[in-house]
Amino acid sequence: MSIRIGILGYGNLGRGVECAIRQNDDMELAAVFTRRDPASVHILTEHVPVYDVSKLESYQDKIDVLLLCGGSATDLPVQTPEYVKYFNVVDSFDTHAKIPQHFANVDKAAKESGKIGMISVGWDPGMFSLNRVYADAVLPEGATYTFWGKGVSQGHSDAIRRIEGVADAKQYTIPVPKALDQVRNGEMPQLSTRQKHTRECFVTVKEGADLAKIEKEIKEMPNYFADYDTTVHFISQEELNKNHSGIPHGGVVLRSGKTGHQLEHQHVIEYSLKLDSNPEFTASILVAYARAAYRMNQEGQCGCKTVLDVAPAYLSRQSADALRQTML
Amino acid sequence: MSIRIGILGYGNLGRGVECAIRQNDDMELAAVFTRRDPASVHILTEHVPVYDVSKLESYQDKIDVLLLCGGSATDLPVQTPEYVKYFNVVDSFDTHAKIPQHFANVDKAAKESGKIGMISVGWDPGMFSLNRVYADAVLPEGATYTFWGKGVSQGHSDAIRRIEGVADAKQYTIPVPKALDQVRNGEMPQLSTRQKHTRECFVTVKEGADLAKIEKEIKEMPNYFADYDTTVHFISQEELNKNHSGIPHGGVVLRSGKTGHQLEHQHVIEYSLKLDSNPEFTASILVAYARAAYRMNQEGQCGCKTVLDVAPAYLSRQSADALRQTML
Repeated sequence: MSIRIGILGYGNLGRGVECAIRQNDDMELAAVFTRRDPASVHILTEHVPVYDVSKLESYQDKIDVLLLCGGSATDLPVQTPEYVKYFNVVDSFDTHAKIPQHFANVDKAAKESGKIGMISVGWDPGMFSLNRVYADAVLPEGATYTFWGKGVSQGHSDAIRRIEGVADAKQYTIPVPKALDQVRNGEMPQLSTRQKHTRECFVTVKEGADLAKIEKEIKEMPNYFADYDTTVHFISQEELNKNHSGIPHGGVVLRSGKTGHQLEHQHVIEYSLKLDSNPEFTASILVAYARAAYRMNQEGQCGCKTVLDVAPAYLSRQSADALRQTML
Repeated sequence: MSIRIGILGYGNLGRGVECAIRQNDDMELAAVFTRRDPASVHILTEHVPVYDVSKLESYQDKIDVLLLCGGSATDLPVQTPEYVKYFNVVDSFDTHAKIPQHFANVDKAAKESGKIGMISVGWDPGMFSLNRVYADAVLPEGATYTFWGKGVSQGHSDAIRRIEGVADAKQYTIPVPKALDQVRNGEMPQLSTRQKHTRECFVTVKEGADLAKIEKEIKEMPNYFADYDTTVHFISQEELNKNHSGIPHGGVVLRSGKTGHQLEHQHVIEYSLKLDSNPEFTASILVAYARAAYRMNQEGQCGCKTVLDVAPAYLSRQSADALRQTML
């Protein structure tokens, strides 16, 4: 019997989940739920219904795991504790500083309902977190570094778009090659924000816009750009559409550490991602953790879980026996 | 209270475990057990006893986890099922083809005794296995590649030393750069054994040895060298001691896969290790999994486990709360 998946929210992430389910033959898409007019939402899978979100609770017997594909700012803090009352849920809550509070809220509701609430699933938080924890546990004396990019930061692109005179924008976060090299060589450098990443912006403007003023506003924007070396390119909308329409991303988690009686030996652990589509890759991770949530709940587990609480075998389509034979 | 660790077998791996325990302040070395004359075994830690292996069973109340630091060929198949009757144990059993049988033996004994038998811990099997499973679960449509090196293969070095006229030898396994590049570019190539790795041998010979004959014997040795492009360098013992006395190793697990409605997006996941000391790094992993074995047993779990059965949080010195705050 397939694991029946529901999707709440049909944006880039929800569509990515829909595509990922098709790659996992032990799963099926049961229904998509939306806050928009369901008649206006056209999904890629035939014969799967799209319902108004108000119908969700009545679907309790037809969905094994509900994947919450909303945003971390306002959707998930409300939705995850709410829907874990009725379903095993998986979310991609990625506001790192607020994870402890979100965990507490979801854990309380999930323990009351007997369901699994799997939070902060994706690649950071997510696969990168795993790698930070594994590497730190294995090399206690060392330093861990996370670099992001080269990739599109949606938040930074949005910030540029809010500047007066800007029509459209795409911002790339790029690791500084020299910093990466130092870390890979085991030098364990102390790196400032500016030394770790640069920011490159491609901007189209409205007629009569003051380019110098826009560039200055971008480069001096606190939190977003002021602490970075930032490059601004003004280009045409055609060029933006042609060369910058994708949502690539990626990054690297590195730990270098020392072992031996006199700490005489050095080791470098590196985990890196190169992603053509950030939302589709994130969605693929959500789907693998939906399988884990289903299995853990079948075993009688409940409460809030993160990727740190899930043994790798739960994620795989293969049985434990098969994994030991083919993957170990 | 510290986790009390016992070591059985004091070779390179056992010494590595001893050093790793010093880096983990929640652990202490309780005793070392050996099959040699204990008086002849000098360990690095003061005030820790070295006992004959026959004393092991009487130490049941003084050791929380026993780390088995023997070899996979003859030691571990006997020791792990035997000592899991009395202790939580961790081993580095690395004969991939025999893991299912070893698992079954250890699982039976561990379930009878109520202990945890953690097997096949290290980096391959071990951290590489984890990464194969995670990457395969996240990108179901794709291909996984494992490359080893550049590093010293003890088995291949030993095989050369058995050739008539050879005094000493060190063999390096080296990934083929072109193959690595193809995989990193997402080309998903079909690679033969020869296309994936080359082998480089540094050999010292006895007086009057026939160099041409030795080189031919190495290059044509079935299983070990015949399927590879192999280079042989004859050097002096001084040079071997000076430049090839370490035991470095490493390698890469790569998976490239596709997502999207038409599989239009490509992703590459890469996990790589660069290790100055293979046995010390392996030992550091064993020690982290000793912590996991202890905690899982404290929770009432028992039976045979592999790295695929262990949630990452069990490995860390930090609490689950702290991990969510700092690492997630």
